[in-house]
Amino acid sequence: MSASASQDQRIAVIGLGSMGFGMATSLKKTGFAVTGCDVSTDAVARFVKDGGAGAKTPAEAAKDADVVVSVVVNAAQTEAVLFGKDGAAETMPKDSVFISSATMDPDVARRLAKQLEATGRHYLDAPISGGAQRAAQGELTILASGSAAAFSKARPALDAMAAKLYELGDAAGQGAAFKMINQLLAGVHIAAASEAIAFAAKQGLDISKVYEVITASAGNSWMFENRMPHVLDGDYTPRSAVEIFVKDLGIIQDMARTARFPVPVSAAALQMFLMTSAAGMGRDDDASVARMYAQVTGVKLPGDK
Amino acid sequence: MSASASQDQRIAVIGLGSMGFGMATSLKKTGFAVTGCDVSTDAVARFVKDGGAGAKTPAEAAKDADVVVSVVVNAAQTEAVLFGKDGAAETMPKDSVFISSATMDPDVARRLAKQLEATGRHYLDAPISGGAQRAAQGELTILASGSAAAFSKARPALDAMAAKLYELGDAAGQGAAFKMINQLLAGVHIAAASEAIAFAAKQGLDISKVYEVITASAGNSWMFENRMPHVLDGDYTPRSAVEIFVKDLGIIQDMARTARFPVPVSAAALQMFLMTSAAGMGRDDDASVARMYAQVTGVKLPGDK
Repeated sequence: MSASASQDQRIAVIGLGSMGFGMATSLKKTGFAVTGCDVSTDAVARFVKDGGAGAKTPAEAAKDADVVVSVVVNAAQTEAVLFGKDGAAETMPKDSVFISSATMDPDVARRLAKQLEATGRHYLDAPISGGAQRAAQGELTILASGSAAAFSKARPALDAMAAKLYELGDAAGQGAAFKMINQLLAGVHIAAASEAIAFAAKQGLDISKVYEVITASAGNSWMFENRMPHVLDGDYTPRSAVEIFVKDLGIIQDMARTARFPVPVSAAALQMFLMTSAAGMGRDDDASVARMYAQVTGVKLPGDK
Repeated sequence: MSASASQDQRIAVIGLGSMGFGMATSLKKTGFAVTGCDVSTDAVARFVKDGGAGAKTPAEAAKDADVVVSVVVNAAQTEAVLFGKDGAAETMPKDSVFISSATMDPDVARRLAKQLEATGRHYLDAPISGGAQRAAQGELTILASGSAAAFSKARPALDAMAAKLYELGDAAGQGAAFKMINQLLAGVHIAAASEAIAFAAKQGLDISKVYEVITASAGNSWMFENRMPHVLDGDYTPRSAVEIFVKDLGIIQDMARTARFPVPVSAAALQMFLMTSAAGMGRDDDASVARMYAQVTGVKLPGDK
């Protein structure tokens, strides 16, 4: 989509955390008129200082918007952004589109879409992956599903935000379901990587060497390769927090119970994230699961005093 | 190692299954005089037809050998090859080396090494990874540990068999321990991939699309990428059987219990391999774990009637 055509669309970005701020920035760079909104007035002020527009509420931001991009953390926040007091649905123009990026239960995505579509607006179920840096560069992966009208209205914004756009179906819920399958695997792989690296340390192995061997072997995973350097460095500054997987593996358990589908491996992984959160590390980096295993078992990892 | 120097060493390969046959073949190609031995007389006859020498027992194969490569499936078979009736230790020349490639508990590797070293021979703890094809091409990954003397004597053979040789310590047990950490992760990843793909099918998702999305996302693992095509093809011809992970995750549980180190994620994964074996698929491909999830939950996967 060329910048000139993009400039015809007005976009509201609700949620200016590390992901949302980056997405708002990449949309602005592409030539859209972007209004940012966040519960943090500091975040909004920072976006305005960067040349964007600011709004106090989703309703104010969504007024006259062609596209509303919601970048909040879960289903409850998404519902509040849309249908809560001063929510976007109060003001969104007819035929505009709401792009929802939060990871949530597909049933909830379907319900929110149905509720919004009944009012003459479109809903695109569009969970994202990729970190804050890729968000700012417009290089996210987006797992999207929704009506042809929703895709059509949202496409210029999607093109600006994504390096890779998957079109996964013609109704809300499909995007969410694909994202949940990814989260099931990602969560299990972080827990397994943590179990393995702490157990290796317990066995007296040099965990730097373990990292070298595993990343070149059949035991590798994207998460092992990405997260275990945090353990090697003893650095648990949150890039993605333990609580994210408490939430996402929790949604998996809810979906699986509803579907009468046993998921014992991800159930075990969830318990380890819960245990890490219970031990006070919920807001730390998700590689803290390794630290929890080590603390419980008296194993020394890098960074321990 | 040049072919001329290699030709000075005589090598016995005990165990001519898909891996051992390939390793014996790649050693022969490099210029070594190789004697093969297997409980299957057919396998030995096939190796002789290919230009190798054959022996009826490990003792007969190991007589006059500089290097004995053991390619059997577990610790019990390794012990039988070495110290059983007509075992290699009856005839191995002084200063020769036994290269053990089976995946086993590091404590057992240490015990076997100690017992052999007490008789004036060397022991190299050298678990392998890579399939039959890489074995035949001399392109295995070998995770080795042992004395300097064991490495020195074994090096020409290791160079012929391995594309990647990790030297992981100066005593038996370290190679085995690194291999077990790899197996912990590999086993969990197969179980998680199986849980995820069957759950995705239950959610009504197109599992070919799931494969495409996941292999490009943070939920990917080496095992997901390598094994899930078997599920997409409905082809459970064993490349690596379910029973391998019943064994290897079982060893992990034994090691962990001894070390008083809880490993709940791999414990859950083991149960799924056990359940798959219990359902009659123990000798099928390890991706059969996905088929087991599908059968239990009434989900249709490719290849189902």
